Amino acid sequence: MCRWMAYSGSPIPIDALLYRPKHSLIDQSQHSELGAEPTNGDGFGIGWYPVEPLDNQSPGRFRGTGPAWSNSNLQDLAQHIRSALFFAHVRATSGTAVQESNCHPFRHDRWLWMHNGSIRDFAQLKRDLLLEVDPALYPEIEGTTDSEAMFFLALTYGLRDDPVAAVERMVGFVEATAARHGVKDPVQMTVATTEGERTWAFRYSSTGQSRTLFYSTDVNDLKALHPDVAVLRMLSDEARLVVSEPLGVMPDAFNEVPESSYSIIHRGQDEMSAFNPR
Amino acid sequence: MCRWMAYSGSPIPIDALLYRPKHSLIDQSQHSELGAEPTNGDGFGIGWYPVEPLDNQSPGRFRGTGPAWSNSNLQDLAQHIRSALFFAHVRATSGTAVQESNCHPFRHDRWLWMHNGSIRDFAQLKRDLLLEVDPALYPEIEGTTDSEAMFFLALTYGLRDDPVAAVERMVGFVEATAARHGVKDPVQMTVATTEGERTWAFRYSSTGQSRTLFYSTDVNDLKALHPDVAVLRMLSDEARLVVSEPLGVMPDAFNEVPESSYSIIHRGQDEMSAFNPR
Amino acid sequence: MCRWMAYSGSPIPIDALLYRPKHSLIDQSQHSELGAEPTNGDGFGIGWYPVEPLDNQSPGRFRGTGPAWSNSNLQDLAQHIRSALFFAHVRATSGTAVQESNCHPFRHDRWLWMHNGSIRDFAQLKRDLLLEVDPALYPEIEGTTDSEAMFFLALTYGLRDDPVAAVERMVGFVEATAARHGVKDPVQMTVATTEGERTWAFRYSSTGQSRTLFYSTDVNDLKALHPDVAVLRMLSDEARLVVSEPLGVMPDAFNEVPESSYSIIHRGQDEMSAFNPR
Amino acid sequence: MCRWMAYSGSPIPIDALLYRPKHSLIDQSQHSELGAEPTNGDGFGIGWYPVEPLDNQSPGRFRGTGPAWSNSNLQDLAQHIRSALFFAHVRATSGTAVQESNCHPFRHDRWLWMHNGSIRDFAQLKRDLLLEVDPALYPEIEGTTDSEAMFFLALTYGLRDDPVAAVERMVGFVEATAARHGVKDPVQMTVATTEGERTWAFRYSSTGQSRTLFYSTDVNDLKALHPDVAVLRMLSDEARLVVSEPLGVMPDAFNEVPESSYSIIHRGQDEMSAFNPR
Repeated sequence: MCRWMAYSGSPIPIDALLYRPKHSLIDQSQHSELGAEPTNGDGFGIGWYPVEPLDNQSPGRFRGTGPAWSNSNLQDLAQHIRSALFFAHVRATSGTAVQESNCHPFRHDRWLWMHNGSIRDFAQLKRDLLLEVDPALYPEIEGTTDSEAMFFLALTYGLRDDPVAAVERMVGFVEATAARHGVKDPVQMTVATTEGERTWAFRYSSTGQSRTLFYSTDVNDLKALHPDVAVLRMLSDEARLVVSEPLGVMPDAFNEVPESSYSIIHRGQDEMSAFNPR
Repeated sequence: MCRWMAYSGSPIPIDALLYRPKHSLIDQSQHSELGAEPTNGDGFGIGWYPVEPLDNQSPGRFRGTGPAWSNSNLQDLAQHIRSALFFAHVRATSGTAVQESNCHPFRHDRWLWMHNGSIRDFAQLKRDLLLEVDPALYPEIEGTTDSEAMFFLALTYGLRDDPVAAVERMVGFVEATAARHGVKDPVQMTVATTEGERTWAFRYSSTGQSRTLFYSTDVNDLKALHPDVAVLRMLSDEARLVVSEPLGVMPDAFNEVPESSYSIIHRGQDEMSAFNPR
Repeated sequence: MCRWMAYSGSPIPIDALLYRPKHSLIDQSQHSELGAEPTNGDGFGIGWYPVEPLDNQSPGRFRGTGPAWSNSNLQDLAQHIRSALFFAHVRATSGTAVQESNCHPFRHDRWLWMHNGSIRDFAQLKRDLLLEVDPALYPEIEGTTDSEAMFFLALTYGLRDDPVAAVERMVGFVEATAARHGVKDPVQMTVATTEGERTWAFRYSSTGQSRTLFYSTDVNDLKALHPDVAVLRMLSDEARLVVSEPLGVMPDAFNEVPESSYSIIHRGQDEMSAFNPR
Repeated sequence: MCRWMAYSGSPIPIDALLYRPKHSLIDQSQHSELGAEPTNGDGFGIGWYPVEPLDNQSPGRFRGTGPAWSNSNLQDLAQHIRSALFFAHVRATSGTAVQESNCHPFRHDRWLWMHNGSIRDFAQLKRDLLLEVDPALYPEIEGTTDSEAMFFLALTYGLRDDPVAAVERMVGFVEATAARHGVKDPVQMTVATTEGERTWAFRYSSTGQSRTLFYSTDVNDLKALHPDVAVLRMLSDEARLVVSEPLGVMPDAFNEVPESSYSIIHRGQDEMSAFNPR
């Protein structure tokens, strides 16, 4: 449905990873190899934490409704903005409108959220799902996607305090609601979320056949193996990437995130555990 | 907040009324004289019933997010589409996102709906208002505006069977909901709706100080008074216009719709009555 | 580079051919099978002659910069506009900006023009090509593409009086200019142009390996062969389609336009001849 | 026609000057007081030099075609990008298309250029003006405006070596070309250009009645006078602003640039001289 990329490490210009690698996310927007379809041309977005942070620590965001591959503003911004933690997403709509408010990453205070996948029969379930959202958060829903509904359910369940538990409860609620409506296997997702320090990446689907997700291996090993790859020299030792599909520069640079699991990335320390909807 | 125009009569190219009059709706998009502000540049839309109708009788629609005054597609379409009943709207957002799904006219089956005004503190009331929408209609809400919420509430209350009663119940419900939340004087509206045959135009506000609304007087009288005005010669005797502010070609061509009233226009027969929220 | 379709025949809703066939132009915008690449998502356009023509006989036009496949305005207009002669085009840029003024069909007075292909090293040749354009026409060039430059050169060479000769001179001039700059094999093109009555379709490339082009066979034969295909029943006997690639409803419905040739379509009379650049 | 702002000084978030002042450029986009019309809603752009410069020293740029006042991406970027030298521009078209390639600032290598005003009868003069552009630069013209033509003429005349002489020659050439075509008083302009270190600001018109232009007075004086104005505390002593109209925070903060003159701003050193077309 979509493709995404989450980076954390030393500050780099966003385009170093978004554009320059051979099978970059921009290339994936037109020629995805592992996605549900090759084209992800229904909008895009980047979210980033400035190197010199603002008082409120909120991340910057730029979204657009056309294809990423031909957007000259995106290319320009990616070349001129440096960040130590950024998200990027290219969208293939599963039916909801192509408009900026439906483009990832979604944002709330210091948090970013992006998603690949869908909730099956979302139109049918939407009303019950949104009713569960904390009424204090409800007015901040800006778009009409299943992805944003998942974000606001996770916020409702305490994303800011315990992200893993909140996402597990969110998925549990979606699955229970779907069951009530007779909708089978409702959840298909890879999700990334961050508050600017740590990144949580989830891979899960009700059927146990989730969209692909990969994380980068140790940068030091890669540097030794590929002394000729320019982009590697920009990365600090603790740099990490989580991606829907490998960037294609280094076939050995990425490992698959296992089915039904999540990963926490923080300053080069990675933690991986089983994901269990509640 | 917005400006709009509703036409019914003989088939004419849309631009005859949308562009050619001196103080046309396009001129009002940049230089409104009676609106809450001079600029209505946050999107636009036209809805029309084709001269040779399709099987499903649904109206055509074209909406855009930029200003109407510089949109060459709008101008082109207005010149090349003829219709005997069309709506046109230019938007000044009262806060919700500038995106096509928030542009008027809204559409459901054969019905069109457009609105000038707002629901005060809509963000605060939104959840309760949308909860009242018929769950079968709920998934068809595409945008995030108060105007579309009013449309779906009216549909819930039977717009297709008894438009006046449905709009009166809708306003009554909004006012009751607002009262529960401690929001005073919530409704400010002029609304037009049609199913392709008749047009209903409403002027109402909780404070009794509604946005302006005008209807055109008998075209025969106008033709006699203004034999030199080209656009008049295109109009059949039963042609009628309802507008947020007069088009400025003929100062005597428009009468104000009284406060708290509605009008039904059908083949040159106009009916005007008091509007009473239920 | 692009895909296009030109229809003439009985008046039909544009969507009957633009959307409903299995491998319609909209499908080709995402999944082209015979084009230079599968995705044609860098803008689109339709041009049509109204059933009840305006005084100036100019065709209507609607263009947009995003992908055709997700544009709800395009779908809406195609469903609600009927025409007896229309062009439709989906674009894959060969480098020039994604903006409406670069989208096909181009228009001058009563004429439409659309193109698939490119002029090699156009940036290098552009100045000399535009210098050749009639200074009286020069100010009307709105975009920056090779396709529009070809149109204005053809207009300069008398497109409105003798379309075939004008296009042959245009190609001859481009090839001569390219030769002066040391650019080999500069022209790759399929082109359609019309004044609202006749349609001229050209297939040519300097290398003799032109992009594909097909024309529909006799509708009567098709109706007999495919009594079950709904769209055929809407078409009059003289209806004709010229397309970059077959629509996929009827494998036997399309014949390839031969290399280096052109076709003139007029009320069911087709004429095909060799194309010779001058 | 347009409104613009040029800042140089200590690094600040762009929104500190673009959004926060009472009569900011964003406010001027909807409510200009000194411009040719109140609304400047036909596109916008910002150009900035990153605090930590890239190898090629090129400035970043973000442009859009809708009104600045409702563009959430612009607001987001302005909040999250810091710069010690940036340009901002809101556009009111004098006739050329509303598209990103026509939005200011224009860019070439390290240079930015923005303009308020117009060349009278530009469509008539355009061909002769563009013919004068260095053929090596000609392919890089991306849009269709008089403003960009002025930039490329100035580049042709040596903008990068001697900006004042180049702009004087450019204006002289436009005036001579206009005279040949019988067009009187062709030039109306305020222009700003920079290479990232110094900013040149020009005020000139053929009639001697130029659009307004103002520069800020010494920040130290202002800080003493207005200890309560928050934005002033962010500015270093050498900070300077050049604006189409004063920002409205401090009536005494801006002086008018005299008719037919130019100013060079560099690290708090300002130089003002007479402008003489050659």
